[in-house]
Amino acid sequence: MKDEIDQEEVAKRRGIYFPAFSIYGGSSGLFDYGPYGSLIKDNIQNIWKEMIFSEGPVAMLDSPALTLQNVLKASGHYDRFFDYSVQCKSCNTKFRADDIVESLGLKVILDRDYLNNIIREKGIKCPKCGGEFDDVRIHKLMFQVDQGENMDPLFLRPETAQGIFVNFKEFYRFFREKLPFAVIQIGRGYRNEISPRRGLYRLREFNMMECEVFLDPKDEKWVKEPYDDVKIHYLTNKDEDLFMTPKEAYEKGIIKSQPLAYFTGFAFKFYSRIGLDVNKIRFRQHKKEDLSHYSSDTWDAEALTDIGWIEITGIAHRGTYDVGRHIEYSARDLYAQRLVEPHKEKKIELEPNFKEIKRDFGDKAGEIIKAINNGNSTVFLNNKQISLEKYIIRKEVEVTVDRESFVPIVVEPSFGLDRIIYALLDHNFDKREENGYVYLKIPPQVSPFVAGVYPLFPKEDLEKVAKDIYQKLLNDGFKVIYDDSGSIGKRYARYDEVGVPFGITVDYDTLKDSTVTIRFRDTTEQIRVSINDLTSKLRELLWTGKKN
Amino acid sequence: MKDEIDQEEVAKRRGIYFPAFSIYGGSSGLFDYGPYGSLIKDNIQNIWKEMIFSEGPVAMLDSPALTLQNVLKASGHYDRFFDYSVQCKSCNTKFRADDIVESLGLKVILDRDYLNNIIREKGIKCPKCGGEFDDVRIHKLMFQVDQGENMDPLFLRPETAQGIFVNFKEFYRFFREKLPFAVIQIGRGYRNEISPRRGLYRLREFNMMECEVFLDPKDEKWVKEPYDDVKIHYLTNKDEDLFMTPKEAYEKGIIKSQPLAYFTGFAFKFYSRIGLDVNKIRFRQHKKEDLSHYSSDTWDAEALTDIGWIEITGIAHRGTYDVGRHIEYSARDLYAQRLVEPHKEKKIELEPNFKEIKRDFGDKAGEIIKAINNGNSTVFLNNKQISLEKYIIRKEVEVTVDRESFVPIVVEPSFGLDRIIYALLDHNFDKREENGYVYLKIPPQVSPFVAGVYPLFPKEDLEKVAKDIYQKLLNDGFKVIYDDSGSIGKRYARYDEVGVPFGITVDYDTLKDSTVTIRFRDTTEQIRVSINDLTSKLRELLWTGKKN
Repeated sequence: MKDEIDQEEVAKRRGIYFPAFSIYGGSSGLFDYGPYGSLIKDNIQNIWKEMIFSEGPVAMLDSPALTLQNVLKASGHYDRFFDYSVQCKSCNTKFRADDIVESLGLKVILDRDYLNNIIREKGIKCPKCGGEFDDVRIHKLMFQVDQGENMDPLFLRPETAQGIFVNFKEFYRFFREKLPFAVIQIGRGYRNEISPRRGLYRLREFNMMECEVFLDPKDEKWVKEPYDDVKIHYLTNKDEDLFMTPKEAYEKGIIKSQPLAYFTGFAFKFYSRIGLDVNKIRFRQHKKEDLSHYSSDTWDAEALTDIGWIEITGIAHRGTYDVGRHIEYSARDLYAQRLVEPHKEKKIELEPNFKEIKRDFGDKAGEIIKAINNGNSTVFLNNKQISLEKYIIRKEVEVTVDRESFVPIVVEPSFGLDRIIYALLDHNFDKREENGYVYLKIPPQVSPFVAGVYPLFPKEDLEKVAKDIYQKLLNDGFKVIYDDSGSIGKRYARYDEVGVPFGITVDYDTLKDSTVTIRFRDTTEQIRVSINDLTSKLRELLWTGKKN
Repeated sequence: MKDEIDQEEVAKRRGIYFPAFSIYGGSSGLFDYGPYGSLIKDNIQNIWKEMIFSEGPVAMLDSPALTLQNVLKASGHYDRFFDYSVQCKSCNTKFRADDIVESLGLKVILDRDYLNNIIREKGIKCPKCGGEFDDVRIHKLMFQVDQGENMDPLFLRPETAQGIFVNFKEFYRFFREKLPFAVIQIGRGYRNEISPRRGLYRLREFNMMECEVFLDPKDEKWVKEPYDDVKIHYLTNKDEDLFMTPKEAYEKGIIKSQPLAYFTGFAFKFYSRIGLDVNKIRFRQHKKEDLSHYSSDTWDAEALTDIGWIEITGIAHRGTYDVGRHIEYSARDLYAQRLVEPHKEKKIELEPNFKEIKRDFGDKAGEIIKAINNGNSTVFLNNKQISLEKYIIRKEVEVTVDRESFVPIVVEPSFGLDRIIYALLDHNFDKREENGYVYLKIPPQVSPFVAGVYPLFPKEDLEKVAKDIYQKLLNDGFKVIYDDSGSIGKRYARYDEVGVPFGITVDYDTLKDSTVTIRFRDTTEQIRVSINDLTSKLRELLWTGKKN
C-alpha cells in the first residue's frame, strides 16, 4: 500500500513542503518548508547539533552565503564547478548533457568533446520535442551576484565548507592549537542547476549540515574509536556488499582512514535516531575514477527511496587540499604545528629581496614579503599567479627546532538536509491496513508537534478545559496544536498524516475525574492519564515513544 | 571603565564575530559569527522561538532567499527599495546622500532633487578627500542574481516577510481558517548597502527574526491582552517620554492597535530574558512623515549603545497593504473570510466576458478569467498592469450571504538579530574594578558554553577526572568546554571574557572527596559541589544563575 503514497502530493497538500512563490508560477528548484516541514527540519537540525557537539572538540561557524570571488578561485569552484548542458534548438529546453547520455544507457565521461561526439554520433534528439540539440556547452553552477560598478562579483556559496576553511586559524586558536577538532556549519548552499527536479532532490537553494574535521596527517585519528555496536551496509568500490561494524571496516582496511570509518558510524546513528529506516541505508565507496582529484577515499551514505538510492551524505577524505589551497591563494599562514624532539638543523632561510620586490611591486610589496615569510613559492595577485623564486634570497643557517609546521588534512561529513527529509518522509509514510489512511510514523522528537489537544465535541465546557491544557503545555515548552473542528476521527487522521505522535482528547469524563485520553498515532491505542501527570507523561513519551 | 571596552576588538580577538573572508581582504558588510558568537546567536534564536511559539497560534515558514522578481514588484521593493548615493569624483568613494546631508546637521528630505540641490548649494565636499561630488544617483539596494539566458533575474530577499505573505492562504488553511494567527521566519536578508559600517550595525547579509500577525480588521486583537506587569519607555511621535505598561499605553490610546501594544510588551520581555539592559530600551513611535505610506503606526524598539540609540526591532502596523498587493499582482484569492448573519443581498455579479478576453489575450485568457472571478479590477501581465473593466459583464442577482471576504491586516514585529547581538554585547561587557579584566555578564541561557571544565594543574590524575566530568556533561547535553592550558586564573579570565558563567575546577580535594569547585563569573565567588550533583546543579544554575 505504501508504494501508492505520493510524497510530494501529501507534502504539498499538508504544508510540509511545496514549491516556493507558487502564486506567481513558482521557480524550479526553489521550495518552501511550510508549517509542518519547517518544524521537522528544525528538529532534525537540533538533534544533529546535539549529537555532534557531544563529540567534544566541535565548534560552530556562521558565515555569509555571499562569498568573495577569490575564495572560490582558491577552492577550485570558480574554474571547475560546472555541468555540461545541451539545449534543444526547437523547444529551447536545456538538459544536462550527461543526464541525456546516461538516460540512454550510454557510458558517461565528463568531457565536453566526448559528450558532444556521442550526441552527434548517436543522433540523440530532445526527449521533450524530438528536436535537434545544439552543441554541448559549459553551464556554470554558481550564482553570480552583482555588487555594483568597479567591483568583483560576489557568488552565492556552493557549500558552507569554504567559510570554515578560510577561518581555520581562528578555530585552531580556539582549540588551543590542538588537533583533532571539528567545525560545523548549518546553512544554505546554492547551485544553479540546469534541470532541478523531483521536489527536494535537486534544489537550487538547499540546506546543508557540514562538518570539517581537521587532523594531523601523522596522527589521523578522531577522539573516539569507530563504533562496534552497529552493523552497517558498506558497498565497496569493488562492488562488494559488506555488512560489518565501523570498527571492523577500519580494522580490516575496508576504510583506511580512522575518522572516515568513525563518521560512517556517526551518520548511521544519526539516521537511526531521526527515524530513517536503517535497513535502507548503505555507504557506497566512490570508485577510483569518480573521486575528486584531491580525495583518497569517499563514502556516500545513500538511502533507498521511491526514486532509487539517493545520496544523503558525503563523507570524504579531502587530504590537505582545502587548507593547502587557501595557504597558496591567500599567502597567509594557515599551518598547524606539532611538537618534535628539540634538535639542531641546518636550514635554508628564505629572505625577501626587498629591493627587487619594491621595484617590481611598488605598494603591493608588503603582500609579497608576507607571502615569502609564510614560505609560499607563488602568490596570487590581481588574479594572476606569480612565481616568487626571483625575489627570494637563500641563506644557510643552523637553528634549534622544536616544532614543525604542517598543513592539516580534512575529513568532511557533509549532510544534505533536504534529501534527508525526503528520505525520512519516504521511509515513514505508511497506510493503515484497515482503512487506507496515511500516517507518518516519525519519532516524537522529530515530529512537528508533540501532541494535538482536542475537545471531543464542540461544546463550551470541553473546549475550555482543552484550551487550558493546550496553554499549559505551551507554557511547559511543548509544541502542541489545538483543534476543535470536525469529528474526532477526522482530527486524528489529520494529524496522523503529518506525524503528530499523540492525541490528547478532552471528553465528558474529563469534567468528572480530570483525566484525558492519550491516543497513539502508530497503534491507535489509547490510555487514560490524569491532567496533572500530562507534562511528565509527555516528557517520558517524547523520549521512549512507548505507552508504558 | 566600561566605556573603554571596544566591542569589535574583543569580538574579533575572541572569535565572537569578525569580518568574513579576512584572509582575502574581506568584504565590507559581511561578517562571520565565530565559535562563541554562533552559539550566542543560536541561543537567542532558540529563546525567541520558544517564547513566540508559546503564544499559541504561531507557525513557522522556511522559504528561499532567492526570490522571484514578480514577488518584489508586488511588495514594492523592486521600485522603491533604493538609497540616494553620491560618489566623489576624485577618490571614487560612494556615500549615502542623506548621510552626507545629515552629518552636517542639515534637514534631510528623501528626494533626489532636494539632496542634489542642497549638496550643490552648500558646496558639500567629500569628507574623505575633499573632492567634488558627482550628481546624486539612485542606488538599488537589492542584490540581483543572474539565473541564465532568457530568464528574469532573481533577487536576494531584502526581508523574510514576503515568503510569508505569498503563503498567506497556506497558513490560513493550517489554522483552520481562523484569525488571528502569526507566522514567523528566521533567516537571512540582504541589502547592497552603499556604506556598510560599524560591524554588525549595517550588514549586507543579515539575520532577522520576523513575525507576521494576521488579523481581522473588524476584530483587531491578538490572543492575549497587553502586559500589565512591565513598565516601558515609550517615546511618542510628539516627542513625549512616557513610562507605562503596554496595557496602559493601549487603554490610554497611546498605541491604538491592541496587537501593536501587545508586541511592544513581548519584545520587552524577550530583551529582558536574553539579558539586554531594559533601562536602555525605548520604543520610539515613527513620526507621521516618516511612516511608510501603508502604515498607520510603527514603533521601533531602540537600544542605547556606544553608537547611540539603534533600532533593534520594528513593530509596524502594515494595514492590508501586504496581502492586498499580492492579491492584486498575483490575481489569486488570498482573502480571509468571516461569518455574518445569513441574509439576502442584491448583488452585482461580475462575469468575465469570455469572447472579448479570448480575442484580446489568447492563451493568457485563463489568467484574466481567474482574476475577474477573484474580484480583481486590474491584473499584472507581462510586467504591465491592465485594467479589466472592459472585460467584465455586470448582472444584478439576489443571493443568500453568510460570510464575507476581507483582506487581513498585518502587524509585524521584525527583530534584527545582529543588532540585538550588538546591543547585548554593549550592555553586558564590563570590567572588574579590582583588576580591569573584561567579563561578559550575559545570562547562562545565552552564554556560548554553560561551563568550562579545568584541571587545576596540568597533572595526569587531575586531567583524567576533569576529562571524565567534561564528557559526562557533554553526554548530558550541556555545551561545555575543556581547557588545561595556562594558569587557572588565566583560564577563568579567558572564559569570563566570552560570557561562560560557570567554571568547574578539579583539584587535589577532588581526588579525595569527589567534589569540585564551581566558580561564578559575575561575582568570582566559588562553591563546592559533589561531582554526582553537578548535572542537577548546572541545570538549576542555568535557569536561576544564582548560587543557591
